[in-house]
Amino acid sequence: MSTTAKAYGTEAAEAPLNQLNITRRNPTPHDVEIEILFCGVCHSDLHVARNEWHSTIYPTVPGHEIVGKVVNVGGHVSKFKVGDIVGVGCMVDSCQECEYCKESMEQYCVNEMTQTYNSPDKHLGTHTFGGYSESVVVDEKFVLRIPENLDLAGTAPLLCAGITTYSPLRHWNVGPGQNVGVVGIGGLGHMGIKLAKAMGAHVIAFTTSESKFEEAKRLGADEVVLSKDADQMAAYKGKLHFILDAVSANHDVNTYLSLLRVDGSMVLVGVPEHPLSLASFNLVIGRRSLAGSAIGGIAETQEMLDFCGEHNITADIEMINIQDINEAYERLLKSDVKYRFVIDMASLKD
Amino acid sequence: MSTTAKAYGTEAAEAPLNQLNITRRNPTPHDVEIEILFCGVCHSDLHVARNEWHSTIYPTVPGHEIVGKVVNVGGHVSKFKVGDIVGVGCMVDSCQECEYCKESMEQYCVNEMTQTYNSPDKHLGTHTFGGYSESVVVDEKFVLRIPENLDLAGTAPLLCAGITTYSPLRHWNVGPGQNVGVVGIGGLGHMGIKLAKAMGAHVIAFTTSESKFEEAKRLGADEVVLSKDADQMAAYKGKLHFILDAVSANHDVNTYLSLLRVDGSMVLVGVPEHPLSLASFNLVIGRRSLAGSAIGGIAETQEMLDFCGEHNITADIEMINIQDINEAYERLLKSDVKYRFVIDMASLKD
Repeated sequence: MSTTAKAYGTEAAEAPLNQLNITRRNPTPHDVEIEILFCGVCHSDLHVARNEWHSTIYPTVPGHEIVGKVVNVGGHVSKFKVGDIVGVGCMVDSCQECEYCKESMEQYCVNEMTQTYNSPDKHLGTHTFGGYSESVVVDEKFVLRIPENLDLAGTAPLLCAGITTYSPLRHWNVGPGQNVGVVGIGGLGHMGIKLAKAMGAHVIAFTTSESKFEEAKRLGADEVVLSKDADQMAAYKGKLHFILDAVSANHDVNTYLSLLRVDGSMVLVGVPEHPLSLASFNLVIGRRSLAGSAIGGIAETQEMLDFCGEHNITADIEMINIQDINEAYERLLKSDVKYRFVIDMASLKD
Repeated sequence: MSTTAKAYGTEAAEAPLNQLNITRRNPTPHDVEIEILFCGVCHSDLHVARNEWHSTIYPTVPGHEIVGKVVNVGGHVSKFKVGDIVGVGCMVDSCQECEYCKESMEQYCVNEMTQTYNSPDKHLGTHTFGGYSESVVVDEKFVLRIPENLDLAGTAPLLCAGITTYSPLRHWNVGPGQNVGVVGIGGLGHMGIKLAKAMGAHVIAFTTSESKFEEAKRLGADEVVLSKDADQMAAYKGKLHFILDAVSANHDVNTYLSLLRVDGSMVLVGVPEHPLSLASFNLVIGRRSLAGSAIGGIAETQEMLDFCGEHNITADIEMINIQDINEAYERLLKSDVKYRFVIDMASLKD
């Protein structure tokens, strides 16, 4: 019981993305069928398309920042109706039985969450296909409500970049009276600045480029620091309560750790390819922590969307047609985007 | 207003320790003069004696695990009287004014605590000399009460090895219902096992040597794991709430991080000489933290001593005479001690 859907993907690591057909299941009683309107372009999409994490199953269709319209619902669906505007992020299923699923931390499911693409698909026996497609069918438990006031294209990146930065900021109780550093002003970092600011923190953005100073302030940073200037960095030594490290490239975390106050935490949300070099001294002095965080649970993702609705926060985006995706990947590699590409999926109908 | 005291120390990184004379101040109104009975031998003593941290001021007299008897008190001393048995650990002073001192975290004093040895001495204008000496004069704020039931020689190492392991176990709320790993069964690790067990945790000791299995169980470990056996390690993946990493040598922290549960923390109390290699993936998956911790505040050190009194916990020691200190250092380098050398300071009178 399945149908064919148009999508954009690739058959091999070296091949460009191109149009192909995929199979979507017909909605089960608990499923929601979504016509995809917009899909954000996450760096993970590129990693998987090019098999950079050595686990890609081909053909692959990336995309996990999905906003769309409900066009069909299964008989037992209670949360959504045809016509609703909804979102789907990085997960479309999890075991629902382990201790972490029961605590609404499906992202840490002991039996491994089903990712929106490149995971085993228990319905069709194949693997999951992502949001570079005209439609997707998802269990309603993994479908999110989109606040009415938000721009839909700018909302798509909230489903990954938004929750990835919101979750650690919330988990580590970022708020008023705190100096919060955000390292890296890209897809994740620009959301980190907006969200930390909306949570009431005093936000200090760190960038390697003086040209980003004005931008960082426009995004909401109270202060901006040129990270390669040792004097500027030294002025913040021991001053920060929390640092969100949104850099995916290899970089020196030690310089930042020394900026933390006693009991401060620095949290990695990017995953650099090579191991980091860590001077343990920087943790021992000041009882500091270096931690990591991966997306967020479904309940927390809904909380993030509602928070963004309340504070009118969306991502800063550059809209593209699906036919421009290969060029967009090249620009992504050069960080040449402010700050997230979003695909207008209407272009797939052309 | 000072007197001369016999001590053991060295004039140069390459020279062995030998007997020398140092100056101790006469007690000020807030000071306690202590006849030193026992002094533990910490690996830091060796690092400083040999200038391995590149900050030694010579001549240097190591020793910061001091137990002794009060022989004189200043006019305003209220906590101690002549004849009391007391302890002195790694600190003898701090600014008492910064936010951390006010929160009883003198070890993280913004203006830098005065260490028991090798720190500027604000009284005499020279630098501080440690516990390899017949006496020491310390502000009563930095002097600890020793529970009456404890063996005094075995108590000396509590002043550094004890508080260094107790503080993180308490700060991260280790207790019943938790699987707590202790990595490295040496001076610090053997205290970590005893203390975590006394706090009610299920203790899992990790060692590179099968020969230490029985020892680890004798110390209180519920389970022992051979860390170089991948199968044994895999059985604990995602199972531990907390790991105390008491290894000072360079080692792979990634293997241990993967044993942590979601939101688990691993805390370094040893400081390996070279930077650690850290795969950020191991933090991001499971929102894990790698942290550090340095000794403990004075109030917490007293709490630790009282806890040890209540649970009758002391260090396992090998007693030596001060004349054997150079040989003890050589054995320390080979980890040939179970588990702490303690100097019987009566030998300095010979």
